[in-house]
Amino acid sequence: MNNFTYWNPTKIYFGEGQIASLKDEIPAGARVLITYGGGSIKKNGIFDQVTAALEGITFFEFGGIEPNPHYETCIKAVEFAKQENIDFMLAVGGGSVIDATKFIAAATKYEGNPWDIMTTFGGAVTGAVTVGCVLTLAATGSEMNPTSVVTRAETQDKLFFNSDYVRPKFSILDPKTTYSLPPRQVGNGVVDSFVHVLEQYVTYPANAKVQDRFAEGLLSTILEDGPKALSEPENYDVRANLMWSATQALNGLLATGVPGDWATHLIGQVITGFYGLDHGQTLAVILPAVWQYKIEQKKQKLIQYGQRVWHIQETDPDTIATQAIERTREFFETMGVQTKLSDYGLDAKIIPNVVAKLKEYNFTQLGENADITPDDVAKILELAL
Amino acid sequence: MNNFTYWNPTKIYFGEGQIASLKDEIPAGARVLITYGGGSIKKNGIFDQVTAALEGITFFEFGGIEPNPHYETCIKAVEFAKQENIDFMLAVGGGSVIDATKFIAAATKYEGNPWDIMTTFGGAVTGAVTVGCVLTLAATGSEMNPTSVVTRAETQDKLFFNSDYVRPKFSILDPKTTYSLPPRQVGNGVVDSFVHVLEQYVTYPANAKVQDRFAEGLLSTILEDGPKALSEPENYDVRANLMWSATQALNGLLATGVPGDWATHLIGQVITGFYGLDHGQTLAVILPAVWQYKIEQKKQKLIQYGQRVWHIQETDPDTIATQAIERTREFFETMGVQTKLSDYGLDAKIIPNVVAKLKEYNFTQLGENADITPDDVAKILELAL
Repeated sequence: MNNFTYWNPTKIYFGEGQIASLKDEIPAGARVLITYGGGSIKKNGIFDQVTAALEGITFFEFGGIEPNPHYETCIKAVEFAKQENIDFMLAVGGGSVIDATKFIAAATKYEGNPWDIMTTFGGAVTGAVTVGCVLTLAATGSEMNPTSVVTRAETQDKLFFNSDYVRPKFSILDPKTTYSLPPRQVGNGVVDSFVHVLEQYVTYPANAKVQDRFAEGLLSTILEDGPKALSEPENYDVRANLMWSATQALNGLLATGVPGDWATHLIGQVITGFYGLDHGQTLAVILPAVWQYKIEQKKQKLIQYGQRVWHIQETDPDTIATQAIERTREFFETMGVQTKLSDYGLDAKIIPNVVAKLKEYNFTQLGENADITPDDVAKILELAL
Repeated sequence: MNNFTYWNPTKIYFGEGQIASLKDEIPAGARVLITYGGGSIKKNGIFDQVTAALEGITFFEFGGIEPNPHYETCIKAVEFAKQENIDFMLAVGGGSVIDATKFIAAATKYEGNPWDIMTTFGGAVTGAVTVGCVLTLAATGSEMNPTSVVTRAETQDKLFFNSDYVRPKFSILDPKTTYSLPPRQVGNGVVDSFVHVLEQYVTYPANAKVQDRFAEGLLSTILEDGPKALSEPENYDVRANLMWSATQALNGLLATGVPGDWATHLIGQVITGFYGLDHGQTLAVILPAVWQYKIEQKKQKLIQYGQRVWHIQETDPDTIATQAIERTREFFETMGVQTKLSDYGLDAKIIPNVVAKLKEYNFTQLGENADITPDDVAKILELAL
């Protein structure tokens, strides 16, 4: 096991009716900015639950945060927050709303050019307005981590930043808020959380037995309950298990003491930045291709994954590894998320653009062994056509 | 899954050499009290590593904290801490030292009779000196939770308290610090962490798949690596896996959304208070007896445990449940911890004393169903003779 530091101070309120706990967490005199996305929270009763809990507290609204939230939108919220002296930000939504709110919270306290926050991957952040979350989609894990991904529409740059200043003070996870999600968002969320686990697990062995088994436990749970979220959208336990899985998948716990891959996420982010695919779609396309390309280096963990998660009974190591990749791809398809670039109308013409953007970001040594170069990415994309 | 709140702000530094991180966590002007036990840390180099990291910081020492730490000893430390205006307490040891330090930290800031802290189970605590830990034994989980167990030697009362004020600010977990532990402490530690998991897992089904699988992952890891800690005491990965398992076993994560039993711990604490058995010894004796007595209520989870952790291939449910209990008992024996009261020279004469003490504490409705009465405890103890 590698040395590590682990710290996660976000408080979680989990379960039906927990939105009422907002009253215990937001200071009475706060000036709160409620941030949200396309407005579904105004139709499904979540906004009403939030405002009921905030009775007596001054709040403002900023809606219209898009999936893969735009820097340009966030900047408008920053201006509004400064103008209204906002001192608490309450993100009500999924990962996009939370990610955007983290950026807005940091940028509101930042004196220089806000884009610095992204180009320094968070290094420039010196403070942030306090953030709290009401989660409405099990997917990104943003509700319990210091990470945010923001897209600059103008330049098609999709970048991430990390800062302890933007860790949510609390997050409220009520599984019922996810009952009314469209199947596409459910599928993308399941793929996203599943891939979060895999990027921290299918690398090379580090003899970290707890982390491996926690990863396998999350994968097995998502496998079992992911399809049920599509077929039984109002099954509380299914939604609860998926919601807690997604949070645990990317709150730092699985990363303790083990290598991380993250090639799939970084390549996928560039594709979303250019071509607008959903985040989950890019992961479903790229992950199997990365694995196929790196099958020799990842073989030991692919076999462990195939045996423990998929219960593959074969004895030949290569067969187990290959079947593990194929089952994973099939699972994504089962969740309604296609796994080839051609499924999204993309072809080999995208390869130079993606490779050039990765070079521009200096993302030239990807993967757990830092050995995936831009040339390798081109070959991976060919496998994903 | 039940509703829950989860919050755990303790920062973990894990791995070889991490004791040097103390310099990042203790304020330069602090007046630090280093607390420790029988003095092994002065022989095995740990004390030297700690003081090297504290260079330039004013520190004092308070040693001699016993296993099942005595209230009377803690009170001496409280007097010393007040006299020297201590504003940081650094526990260097296992669960006993950390538990004692939590009590000392709370009592130093408490105006009334310090025993109130125990009789209110922590409700009386209104503040505490900041606590940090250097862990030297994988067992209790105290390094990442708000709980402390203290024994009043004068009255043979062994009680616990909980307070967020005494959560360690940080804990340093260097697996190498456990290399020189005597086998008896290793065995007790393995039993303690194993039983912590079981008390939160072998109850009744709550359809909490993540929590169940995390529990099974810890149990499987402790099963595999516990015996190796005896046979290969300087195997780093073995010590690391056990250390991280023990911390995860009782940091609140497994308890989220599920019922807890804790009858074994509460009965065991009374036995230690009266008869001085090691904590791990009492657990190894009582747990199998509780399970045998409650086999019908616990059958579903015993079967899940038997199949997933012990890989029992039987098909008859009763056989699986019975074998799961027997294998658990055998595992404790493998770790060198005996599982019958008679192994420790105790007989049926202890039963009235234990039952009377539980009544005195109002611990009259134990277990996940709150249906284990003092009469039931008498029958459980008969099964443990």
